[in-house]
Amino acid sequence: MGKEFDVAIVGATGAVGEVMRLILEERRFPVRELRLLASARSRGKRLAFRGEEIEVEVLEEASFDGVDLALFSAGASVSRLYAPEAVKAGALVVDNSSAFRMEPDVPLVVPEVNPGDIDGHCGIIANPNCSTIQMVVALKPLHDRWGLRRVIVSTYQSVSGTGRRALQELEEQLRCWAQGGDGPVEVYPHPIAFNCLPHIDVFQEEGYTREEWKMVRETRKIMSLPDLKVTATAVRVPVRVGHSESIYAEFEEEVDPEEAREILREAPGVAVEDDPQRDLYPQALNAEGKDPCFVGRIRADLFLPNALNFWVVADNLRKGAALNAVQIAELWAGKTS
Amino acid sequence: MGKEFDVAIVGATGAVGEVMRLILEERRFPVRELRLLASARSRGKRLAFRGEEIEVEVLEEASFDGVDLALFSAGASVSRLYAPEAVKAGALVVDNSSAFRMEPDVPLVVPEVNPGDIDGHCGIIANPNCSTIQMVVALKPLHDRWGLRRVIVSTYQSVSGTGRRALQELEEQLRCWAQGGDGPVEVYPHPIAFNCLPHIDVFQEEGYTREEWKMVRETRKIMSLPDLKVTATAVRVPVRVGHSESIYAEFEEEVDPEEAREILREAPGVAVEDDPQRDLYPQALNAEGKDPCFVGRIRADLFLPNALNFWVVADNLRKGAALNAVQIAELWAGKTS
Repeated sequence: MGKEFDVAIVGATGAVGEVMRLILEERRFPVRELRLLASARSRGKRLAFRGEEIEVEVLEEASFDGVDLALFSAGASVSRLYAPEAVKAGALVVDNSSAFRMEPDVPLVVPEVNPGDIDGHCGIIANPNCSTIQMVVALKPLHDRWGLRRVIVSTYQSVSGTGRRALQELEEQLRCWAQGGDGPVEVYPHPIAFNCLPHIDVFQEEGYTREEWKMVRETRKIMSLPDLKVTATAVRVPVRVGHSESIYAEFEEEVDPEEAREILREAPGVAVEDDPQRDLYPQALNAEGKDPCFVGRIRADLFLPNALNFWVVADNLRKGAALNAVQIAELWAGKTS
Repeated sequence: MGKEFDVAIVGATGAVGEVMRLILEERRFPVRELRLLASARSRGKRLAFRGEEIEVEVLEEASFDGVDLALFSAGASVSRLYAPEAVKAGALVVDNSSAFRMEPDVPLVVPEVNPGDIDGHCGIIANPNCSTIQMVVALKPLHDRWGLRRVIVSTYQSVSGTGRRALQELEEQLRCWAQGGDGPVEVYPHPIAFNCLPHIDVFQEEGYTREEWKMVRETRKIMSLPDLKVTATAVRVPVRVGHSESIYAEFEEEVDPEEAREILREAPGVAVEDDPQRDLYPQALNAEGKDPCFVGRIRADLFLPNALNFWVVADNLRKGAALNAVQIAELWAGKTS
């Protein structure tokens, strides 16, 4: 029998934390003991894991005693405060927040793309932003074939990417609408039901949002392409789960859409759904609860022989967050066992 | 008192036909008599116009006797059958369908962009596709300044663009969801509630949909730029009214986002909403019932000094269809009076 690990989930009651617990169980990650950590609001809550109920504990400095692996998904400020404590206690931290992603000594890892990068860690491995993960999973095999030069991406991101409260807000707005009223507008600055908001995370330099900058910087770091041109427009849409992306990708060499389809069919973590004549293309509703990054609408650009257009959809809570974090943990566990 | 016209609306009970009637009234178009034409299903229905009730008549060959202006919005096959009849009867046809748009002797007109083109008509003037109209209104003034070379656009199109039944289907799916069930899936091949469908109109050559080809061909014709490179990804989103577009535009010369903002502020048919720090950007929900094309998120590309990115939103039933058609009629009426 292989090594087993004491595992903690920080933010265990959040939208991503919940899926982390599910995926540890699904993938039979070798958990000896699971510790569920959250804020005082969730104290005493009991959550199921492998048929047992585990009581949620309040996160504090001493929470990491004896923990081998800590999966963080409670926002950047919690990670900044507590991840160093977990490292001090001897745990490996896989952090789903943006707190450490761009630190030079913190690997930023998508196992299908840059698994080797985990070796450089100093106790923390960062999990990339959801919209970046699904994009690089699709771009990497195409880059290996033709050499990626430029990306222009527009996203269609679901509210669950913001967290559980945002999901509740969309649902509440729609329930109120069905009864002829208006729902609460608290999580986003504007209603999200029946609307599109070109605004994810805060606005930063040059008029781009932090989400858009993440897609530039994280893609460059993960793909080891420090000069890659990435232009992003990140948009929130009234979808519960599943991010969609419209991607224009320009390469060094002339591309062929049929070969791209074949390459992607063989690529790890990718499922090609691309048969327009049968109305088959990736959809957020179908991606929910599934692991792959679904790629479809693969077509040559009409004007540039070295460019492709395609459509990528993934479950943002799974591949965009919890699944990728557990895959990182698996890579690490494989090296530790 | 100026000249008055006998006007017919073909497809008067449809989503666009209804807004045509509203806009004729709002803009005090000089209507002497209004004839409302529809299929036999709507026979006898009574609709209000300037405080009176008008009975809907069944469309037939003789419907256009005495009509000066016929606004068509009942689909391409109805236009193909009946527009020639209307022309024979001496009417000017403004056709909202795709039937004649690419005919060399049919002007395709957006009054803010190519008003002069109406002069070449032989009885029919075509109203462009909704997603094209709002894009060219924003692109034209920027093209005049810097010379447009290339466009990459991803759309976020509302269900009302498909028509009244699609609007009802989204609403029904959401009402069923609120009660814990599944709604009907008839208009689109897949559910649209909580989903994004990268599929508008039928799939055609090179893996692009007809909607995407319209954005290529119609943009070229309207802007008199027969070689303009346009790459489009057209996506249906669960929004009732209002199309949004994420646009990357490349020019011959170096651009300046602040100057772009000034140019667009002065441009006809455009309203700039662009103050991210105050969460101000165009939104489908806010555009509903309004006339302008709203432009925001205007920003320089991070890598190409001659490219801009921006976000354009318009009411697809108004500027994307009925309003543009009535504006064409106004141009024509101004020349006839």
